[in-house]
Amino acid sequence: MPSLTTFFPLLRWLRTYRRADGAADLLAGAITAVLLVPQAMAYAVVAGLPPEVGLYASVLPALAYALFGTSAYVGVGPVAVNALMVTSALAMAGHGDPDLRIANAQALAAISALTLLALGVLRGGAFMTFLSRPVLDGFTSGAALMIVLTQLPTLLGIANHSGPVLHEVLLAVWHAPASVNWTTVAVGLTCLSLLFLGKRPLGTLLGHLRLSTLQATLLGRLTPLVVLAAATLAFSAGGLSTYGVAAVGEIPTGLPMPSLGFVSKANWIDLLAPGMLIALITYVSSVSIAQGMASRRREHIDTDQELLALSAANAAAAFGGALPVAASFSRSALNFSTGARTPLAGVVSALLVASTALWLTGLFHDLPKAALAALIVSAVAPLIDLAGFRRTLAYSRSDGLTFATTFVAVLLMGVERGLLLGALLALATYVWRSGRPHMAVLGRLPGSEHFRNVNRYAVESWPHLLLLRIDESLYFANVSRVEQYILEALAARPEVTDLVLVGSSINHIDSSGLAMLENLVPALVEAGVQTHLAEFKGTVLDRLQRGRLLKLLAPGQVFLSTQKAVSALAESAPEPVSI
Amino acid sequence: MPSLTTFFPLLRWLRTYRRADGAADLLAGAITAVLLVPQAMAYAVVAGLPPEVGLYASVLPALAYALFGTSAYVGVGPVAVNALMVTSALAMAGHGDPDLRIANAQALAAISALTLLALGVLRGGAFMTFLSRPVLDGFTSGAALMIVLTQLPTLLGIANHSGPVLHEVLLAVWHAPASVNWTTVAVGLTCLSLLFLGKRPLGTLLGHLRLSTLQATLLGRLTPLVVLAAATLAFSAGGLSTYGVAAVGEIPTGLPMPSLGFVSKANWIDLLAPGMLIALITYVSSVSIAQGMASRRREHIDTDQELLALSAANAAAAFGGALPVAASFSRSALNFSTGARTPLAGVVSALLVASTALWLTGLFHDLPKAALAALIVSAVAPLIDLAGFRRTLAYSRSDGLTFATTFVAVLLMGVERGLLLGALLALATYVWRSGRPHMAVLGRLPGSEHFRNVNRYAVESWPHLLLLRIDESLYFANVSRVEQYILEALAARPEVTDLVLVGSSINHIDSSGLAMLENLVPALVEAGVQTHLAEFKGTVLDRLQRGRLLKLLAPGQVFLSTQKAVSALAESAPEPVSI
Repeated sequence: MPSLTTFFPLLRWLRTYRRADGAADLLAGAITAVLLVPQAMAYAVVAGLPPEVGLYASVLPALAYALFGTSAYVGVGPVAVNALMVTSALAMAGHGDPDLRIANAQALAAISALTLLALGVLRGGAFMTFLSRPVLDGFTSGAALMIVLTQLPTLLGIANHSGPVLHEVLLAVWHAPASVNWTTVAVGLTCLSLLFLGKRPLGTLLGHLRLSTLQATLLGRLTPLVVLAAATLAFSAGGLSTYGVAAVGEIPTGLPMPSLGFVSKANWIDLLAPGMLIALITYVSSVSIAQGMASRRREHIDTDQELLALSAANAAAAFGGALPVAASFSRSALNFSTGARTPLAGVVSALLVASTALWLTGLFHDLPKAALAALIVSAVAPLIDLAGFRRTLAYSRSDGLTFATTFVAVLLMGVERGLLLGALLALATYVWRSGRPHMAVLGRLPGSEHFRNVNRYAVESWPHLLLLRIDESLYFANVSRVEQYILEALAARPEVTDLVLVGSSINHIDSSGLAMLENLVPALVEAGVQTHLAEFKGTVLDRLQRGRLLKLLAPGQVFLSTQKAVSALAESAPEPVSI
Repeated sequence: MPSLTTFFPLLRWLRTYRRADGAADLLAGAITAVLLVPQAMAYAVVAGLPPEVGLYASVLPALAYALFGTSAYVGVGPVAVNALMVTSALAMAGHGDPDLRIANAQALAAISALTLLALGVLRGGAFMTFLSRPVLDGFTSGAALMIVLTQLPTLLGIANHSGPVLHEVLLAVWHAPASVNWTTVAVGLTCLSLLFLGKRPLGTLLGHLRLSTLQATLLGRLTPLVVLAAATLAFSAGGLSTYGVAAVGEIPTGLPMPSLGFVSKANWIDLLAPGMLIALITYVSSVSIAQGMASRRREHIDTDQELLALSAANAAAAFGGALPVAASFSRSALNFSTGARTPLAGVVSALLVASTALWLTGLFHDLPKAALAALIVSAVAPLIDLAGFRRTLAYSRSDGLTFATTFVAVLLMGVERGLLLGALLALATYVWRSGRPHMAVLGRLPGSEHFRNVNRYAVESWPHLLLLRIDESLYFANVSRVEQYILEALAARPEVTDLVLVGSSINHIDSSGLAMLENLVPALVEAGVQTHLAEFKGTVLDRLQRGRLLKLLAPGQVFLSTQKAVSALAESAPEPVSI
């Protein structure tokens, strides 16, 4: 039975909490907060919401996660891909009024919370399994490129009213050359260059200066803050506003009181499906982040508890005036590399963000919007995973096709429909492949008890005996193909009187497979061929006992090994012939 | 390259045609025609069309099939389930005008013909694989029960305006008690009783009279004709029309001139999807009939050629003023058991039906409609496959559930949506099941080289060695579960330093599986566990060469057998311990 410590893992880790843990968590939490503040504001902007909403999303939700979550490293808050899904959902729910947009974003968080709770209660971790790696990677890459494209108008200093679909963004940019603000372009490009320099090149430089990897990482992580601060200084000191450069402007101080006011304002009907999809993506990405880190420490993540914690975090987001939240890969990795020991590290980050919201929002008044857009571009650009696409394509053409299709579909059709199309394609691909099983006629390696494909090896075989191995579970998508293969193999060798099906690779036979065999076996007897089974698994044979096949087989036999089948069926034959 | 004889199989069999073949085909064709004439009229009535349309559907289409078909036995013409799908499609296309109904039925045949042609050209036999046995059986059973229900109003002598959905039929019957014609009920029940007696009981009786099985079958097959003739006599001699019993009435003599007149009249848009679905069901049922018979003679059916032949037959139906056609199970079985040798048997049947249409339609003027309804009920009742449902349920609960769901859905939602729901359910069930693979920790049977599940057998194992067999291909639906199982197994045994994945049952690893392993292997190294592979198939290893896994594995090894892995990894261990 689940105990209290199952639902509140903090009861477990708080009991053994030490002073050293505290120091580690404090350091990790503080460093992560430095990355979190600008990212949180930036992703709120991606979602088409005021920047402070991103700060709100980093306080209460993070505290809720710390209460229920099992991972010491996972940093919960606004993330890029979910932010894009929020924009898309808000565009569907259709409202320009900023207050209503926030209410709708809260409703999305509430729907996500309920969906995640339902998945947790129904032990629905299985649902994530319908999204394959190529679909998720294609989806993430497409969403990331889409985010980059949505920042183009801000980087060009032109108005942005387009939705998150490729042709709308391209149209907006196409029609705007006359109104481009070149000072804004210069600010954006400068920030972008500095931010990209702060990644690999700075790391390489710091490596040459003999700093440790951790120190180099930490300095690298400071780059965004430094760049944004420099841009803000340039704006106020250089009087950039007179050149038409737009800044973030007034950000209200303080945190909103938790409230249910959004419930009556939100457009629930139109948000339902997108909210559920956001929950699905949140779960898949967050659990894979948590699992990836846990496996490096040989720890175990309770995925159902993780669902509850993510649900609580999104419920807190809904009440706390924020957008849906998820685990952030970059911040979680930072927590991990800076040595966070317990979820208290996340609490530290949350409290620092809260302080920022309470006392420091004035610092962002002169932050150029183009600098924030540059931060967004530099943060999501690495998610466009071209190398991953090349690897996937090299490994499997069909998986590569699924990746590319999902990528293109997200750009052309939007995130929701793109994801759905990719998932269906992955399913169809799998059925297509397992519907074409590998099958081989076997012969015996001379002087051994090993049986191999007659087309690949010099093996001995027996004219009246056909040994056939089927390398796939028998199910509806492949039974007709398997049946046809058997019939063709028998039609090609009219001298065969005994057929041995070798089932070492058959993990399951469904009703369609059973029906095929139950029709085939008596039909082959009429045609003068007796069927036998060899190397079928215990679980498969157990189930076959429930059908009539084993009775229909008689006098055909069930052999434990192919060798035993050959001994029994070919011993009356004079001599094996080599083919 | 396909030769002329591939496209026109008759060029092959006509060359070797003998006098004895002719006698056999003549006899089989004539006997089958006796069954065909009443069935053809009855199924046209099921489709909501005049009875003569069923006769038209048995002439040109049968000749077209004989020209292109590869099976000597398959009898092509109107069939029950397709007739129900035609009613449903005509109801959607919405027209009471009989001429327009016929034009729409012809359009359905044309759409079927084009779909079958496309499937044949694209070598689309694969499409049939998306329909599993339980779905097809549930669909057929549901459609058969639906057909029985649609005949209720005719058997009760009440007006019938309901569509082929359960609640409409039940409503019609519910509201009609006052207008029931009891003479009609008596005629219907009498015919029904005689028809059912003509099946098993007559066969048993004839068996006692020492007739051969074939003779008994033939006499049994005559029953419908005898019953219909008796009902017709009773109607004219007994003056049943004065009691309000309805008869078939005037049937036009002759065959319609082939014409394209339907093209401009039909409601193509609404018929497109149902027509394609009819083509799919036609193909699946017809090919399985042809394959079932061919396998008993160790013959081979060219499924692509079969698609072309069915396409030609439906094109002939469209031009010839008929409804879509398919292979009939009962008539094909009769051809088979009466010894048809070539498709000429079908030509004989077609010519006899043509003669009936030209000269004998007057015989059906006084045929009571209730007698025809009774014939329909007796013909389709055996398709309601309760025994099949019980067998399916006994073999697999999930397949039984799919069967039942499809059955109920066909009754409640109609044939098209019922079939679609069933197909999706079958797919989801399969993914669900293969997403929960069987996995086992292995140990060695003492004194052998055989490895078995430690939970089932008394086996020896080694503390630092974890042997893990995964009984399923690794793909997106199960990778997270497999990963979780591995992590839990390792977390439960902290002393393990070497993990051996035994892959004898893995037929394929997709990109998701590869990504999981590529993430897991280095993470486990960090956690102090080295991963190895054993018994992976050549095809799987070949593909893994394309990814990074085998490099990431080093110094982990790839072993040909589990025994070799144990020899290499446990030889340094002092002694095996029994657990």
